[in-house]
Amino acid sequence: MSKEISQAVIRRMPRYYRYLGELIDEGVERISSNELSTRMNVTASQIRQDLNNFGGFGQQGYGYNVKYLYEEIGKIMGLSEQHNIIIIGAGNLGQAIANYVKFERLGFVTIALFDVNPDICGKTIRGIPIMLVDEMEDFIATHKVDIAALTMPKEKAGAIAKQLVGYGVHAIWNFAHVDLEIDDDVVVENVHLSDTLMQLSYNIVKSRNEKK
Amino acid sequence: MSKEISQAVIRRMPRYYRYLGELIDEGVERISSNELSTRMNVTASQIRQDLNNFGGFGQQGYGYNVKYLYEEIGKIMGLSEQHNIIIIGAGNLGQAIANYVKFERLGFVTIALFDVNPDICGKTIRGIPIMLVDEMEDFIATHKVDIAALTMPKEKAGAIAKQLVGYGVHAIWNFAHVDLEIDDDVVVENVHLSDTLMQLSYNIVKSRNEKK
Repeated sequence: MSKEISQAVIRRMPRYYRYLGELIDEGVERISSNELSTRMNVTASQIRQDLNNFGGFGQQGYGYNVKYLYEEIGKIMGLSEQHNIIIIGAGNLGQAIANYVKFERLGFVTIALFDVNPDICGKTIRGIPIMLVDEMEDFIATHKVDIAALTMPKEKAGAIAKQLVGYGVHAIWNFAHVDLEIDDDVVVENVHLSDTLMQLSYNIVKSRNEKK
Repeated sequence: MSKEISQAVIRRMPRYYRYLGELIDEGVERISSNELSTRMNVTASQIRQDLNNFGGFGQQGYGYNVKYLYEEIGKIMGLSEQHNIIIIGAGNLGQAIANYVKFERLGFVTIALFDVNPDICGKTIRGIPIMLVDEMEDFIATHKVDIAALTMPKEKAGAIAKQLVGYGVHAIWNFAHVDLEIDDDVVVENVHLSDTLMQLSYNIVKSRNEKK
């Protein structure tokens, strides 16, 4: 399992994981690449190629063992361990993330929010405390923090990211609309919402032109 | 401008647009692909290739006219017109989106939120009204609605999407964690937050293993 798998393949894995989870819920024990292909609206050959990257869990004439494949993909994606999240910025977006119960089922557990606004500090969301940004360093020193979600204004994101890395955080889930310049060994995943809006408006105009 | 441009190139355009906007703010009038390359941490040849897709706005020995390039990319991405958004689901995420002033600067204007909860209907966010989902059909019939953002629970997303398409909405910005089965001529952009978390945890485990 040591060979390099492309990020394009990795990006498709969450969707496989979601469909396999649904099959488990329906009591399906095994599935062929053709059946999975119909369900997921992806070619069977794409499915076979993707899953071959992980050593290929299918058996000729049997198909895939749904539960086994689900668990293997989970392990590969790092879901067999718990990841603790802190959220920096307890505005609507930070609170929305703290409220997603579903993330917990995947092993992503929010353990604290931080904000500069003293009025909301001391409050909790689903029992998760909101603390002052000044308390962040102590908190990270005394708790296992795996991921920091940045949901504060972009002007402050760069400085906060540097602080977090200095405190020992190695993964950043960045919602601030700015490129973070930080160490190469820090993992960053950007969620730039306005980029997805621009992608949408491009496709709106394109689709309208095609109809002409 | 009629040739097909790959979605991979289109996905890179918002980042160019952001950097060019920053250059304008700094008063920079022209820039070479090499300078832009250093700034954006992308190879100059990638930049030239990407921008050539749009007819290439650079001139040998002069570089790119920043403002012209910014405006052209804006036009290509559909930003030269206003896109009205309605948000279905006025929870934290829906409210967070309604609060993003920055989207408006790009021409994406939220004009209403809809929710099933009568307690919050009648309230406003930055002057934007929250209405009952039952009022959606009338509202769409009497207002220009270009994009519907789905920020409600995934169990209801499929049914709501079908309704919206029936009412004449042709673009969906989908935050519900489900694949929508709708007409081919409807443009859908998915923002699956848990997928980005899984991507992050994969890279956390990978980065840890590389250090061993």
